[in-house]
Amino acid sequence: MPVLVMKFGGTSVANLDRIRRAAKRVGVEVAKGYDVIVIVSAMSGKTNELVGWVNETSPLFDAREYDAVVSSGENVTAGLMALTLQEMDVPARSWQGWQVPVKTTSAHSAARIEEIPPENITAKFNEGMRVAVVAGFQGVSPEGRITTLGRGGSDTTAVAFAAAFGAERCDIYTDVDGVYTTDPRVSDKARKLDKIAFEEMLELASLGAKVLQTRSVELAMRYKVRLRVLSSFEEQSDEAGTLVCDEEEIMESNVVAGVAFSRDEAKMTLISVADRPGIASIIFGCLSEAGVNVDMIVQNISEEGRTDMTFSLPTDQVSRAEKALGELKTSGGLNFAELDTELDVAKVSVVGIGMRSQSGVAAKMFKVLSDEGINIKVITTSEIKISVLIDRKYMELAVQALHDAFELEKAA
Amino acid sequence: MPVLVMKFGGTSVANLDRIRRAAKRVGVEVAKGYDVIVIVSAMSGKTNELVGWVNETSPLFDAREYDAVVSSGENVTAGLMALTLQEMDVPARSWQGWQVPVKTTSAHSAARIEEIPPENITAKFNEGMRVAVVAGFQGVSPEGRITTLGRGGSDTTAVAFAAAFGAERCDIYTDVDGVYTTDPRVSDKARKLDKIAFEEMLELASLGAKVLQTRSVELAMRYKVRLRVLSSFEEQSDEAGTLVCDEEEIMESNVVAGVAFSRDEAKMTLISVADRPGIASIIFGCLSEAGVNVDMIVQNISEEGRTDMTFSLPTDQVSRAEKALGELKTSGGLNFAELDTELDVAKVSVVGIGMRSQSGVAAKMFKVLSDEGINIKVITTSEIKISVLIDRKYMELAVQALHDAFELEKAA
Repeated sequence: MPVLVMKFGGTSVANLDRIRRAAKRVGVEVAKGYDVIVIVSAMSGKTNELVGWVNETSPLFDAREYDAVVSSGENVTAGLMALTLQEMDVPARSWQGWQVPVKTTSAHSAARIEEIPPENITAKFNEGMRVAVVAGFQGVSPEGRITTLGRGGSDTTAVAFAAAFGAERCDIYTDVDGVYTTDPRVSDKARKLDKIAFEEMLELASLGAKVLQTRSVELAMRYKVRLRVLSSFEEQSDEAGTLVCDEEEIMESNVVAGVAFSRDEAKMTLISVADRPGIASIIFGCLSEAGVNVDMIVQNISEEGRTDMTFSLPTDQVSRAEKALGELKTSGGLNFAELDTELDVAKVSVVGIGMRSQSGVAAKMFKVLSDEGINIKVITTSEIKISVLIDRKYMELAVQALHDAFELEKAA
Repeated sequence: MPVLVMKFGGTSVANLDRIRRAAKRVGVEVAKGYDVIVIVSAMSGKTNELVGWVNETSPLFDAREYDAVVSSGENVTAGLMALTLQEMDVPARSWQGWQVPVKTTSAHSAARIEEIPPENITAKFNEGMRVAVVAGFQGVSPEGRITTLGRGGSDTTAVAFAAAFGAERCDIYTDVDGVYTTDPRVSDKARKLDKIAFEEMLELASLGAKVLQTRSVELAMRYKVRLRVLSSFEEQSDEAGTLVCDEEEIMESNVVAGVAFSRDEAKMTLISVADRPGIASIIFGCLSEAGVNVDMIVQNISEEGRTDMTFSLPTDQVSRAEKALGELKTSGGLNFAELDTELDVAKVSVVGIGMRSQSGVAAKMFKVLSDEGINIKVITTSEIKISVLIDRKYMELAVQALHDAFELEKAA
């Protein structure tokens, strides 16, 4: 029988009523003839409670014990989901990571899945079991200890199972009903996308459209797992939600798929640093060691032999960056005239695989912003994305204007 | 290094502060040179929450899923305890049942421990680890599924580890500071016992002195594991609490070790049943099938060829027993004149291994009760116990009078 993977996040299994609702959705797919693998998260709030206890007990905790503690929430949901399905006369059982086994690396609290042997679960399917409920987010290391995959890791568990079992599709049930052209709270013209390409989803996810864990999308792209994001709080048809898929499956699409934005950005400029080989490596090596996540980087030649180096970073890492660069200057590791920090900036990006074949998107974007009197501070581009840093007060205006200009409210 | 097993019940690990307190106790034993195996229960209230969810989800639950769900509480405590010990610079790690592995039967939710191979934990002790924190109450079946041992099962886990590792002692930390000659709430002369024999503890436990799970005492007796019951809420010396041990280790003891009682008893009498072989089997087979736990049984010949059959049972099983016996009569399976039920009775017992060698205990007990004007309804005796059923209103009086008469306030 064809296999379907269904993943339910924390809010979708927040209490026994919601678990029942989710189980009914599973029952619908079983009735269609699928053998279903259900991946569950912990009931919402549970993982935070467990993480809180670990942090309070041991601020610099042993990640192996962290994993042993925080993985327990998923075990509870898995058992309860299996019981709920059994009550509905659907043959089901629960599996913990080590029972499958979900073999991972030993990188505790950020482990990567290495292999999921399908034999144990397949044998049960062959005996008539219709649903395998698997605790998400967890696995087992070569040393036989429990590992976890990092926050949001159940999405990755789901995609990995879909790949291992050659599933027809991997449905991710969450508290939003799909992927939108932009945040509906910023533009009331935001439209739900029926389909989006993996690459586009990756750019949107890393830009803050927090629907799917980035690693799960990467994995889906690598193994060509068709991912569907849909709401667990609405009645669902087969076409509900947004399908994240290979671009070949998308016949028609707008040049721009969506407008993403990030509010908590800061911009720093090192004024007048020596323009010589190795200087970027010194600066960004220092910032990386200090745990600063630099995003956009731009270099401008200002005068003969000197350069200005500009970069963006999350607002809450500014003081750490200032401290690190100050120390670097004091120690003689780097000479610069001034460090200029702007806190009130935001990043706005347009994303779309159509850009690869169609020129003029950047020009159109800059004109739209210029027409609105919005000054661009930094620009970066990739094959399928153009990002600009602007004053934060213009962010909503920029998103709305770009959404209108690229006519994202209309389907292709 | 010698091995010590220390078990902490739910109230002893109810929150992070109490876990820290328990960890300090463990640290004291490590400093003395012991390799310590710590067995932990779930934080108090957690198991009840999980059991509640399972019952609400599925009243006739699949016990395999029940076990998968309810075992998770112990995993959380084990990880937190290991982290707490690490914070105190004590090398420690947590073990879940399947990791040790604690091999059990497949009788889910009431599994019995079959084997605990000590190799994995011993290897870690040899590498310098000083404390193995093990999640109590759980194990793994031959099919690789998680099992639990029944409520209070962590006591049994502790004793089984003490037996498997040849531990010097098994310390059970709980919310009482030891085993008393009787309940201090009933007699203010109740005295804490320094030592008590396994057999005595078994009689006291099954009579309602709910300090230790009965099976853990049976196991301790079989493997001669010295068990110490003590409070986790007091500063402890090496002589604290009560040692439950082989009778040979107890040099001097009172003839009577303690006075136990049980309040929720009822007495039923089947009047005028045929006195023929097989009649007891029909009556008590019927009650057993109806799930009635019969305790004391007495048969009196009342008239030629007829007999009265009297038995005691928990108050809340009376209606079930009446229904079962009524149906048995209607179906012609048993003929009797009347069924007489008394609800307001209580059981009082004196227990002591000294009774084996000293006669007159029963006579003295009956005289004490008679002097107080207390009528005895039913008597049963074993080698080391005499139990009587009396009107419930006299229960406290009987316990106090017996405690005084046998001078239990004085140590031997």
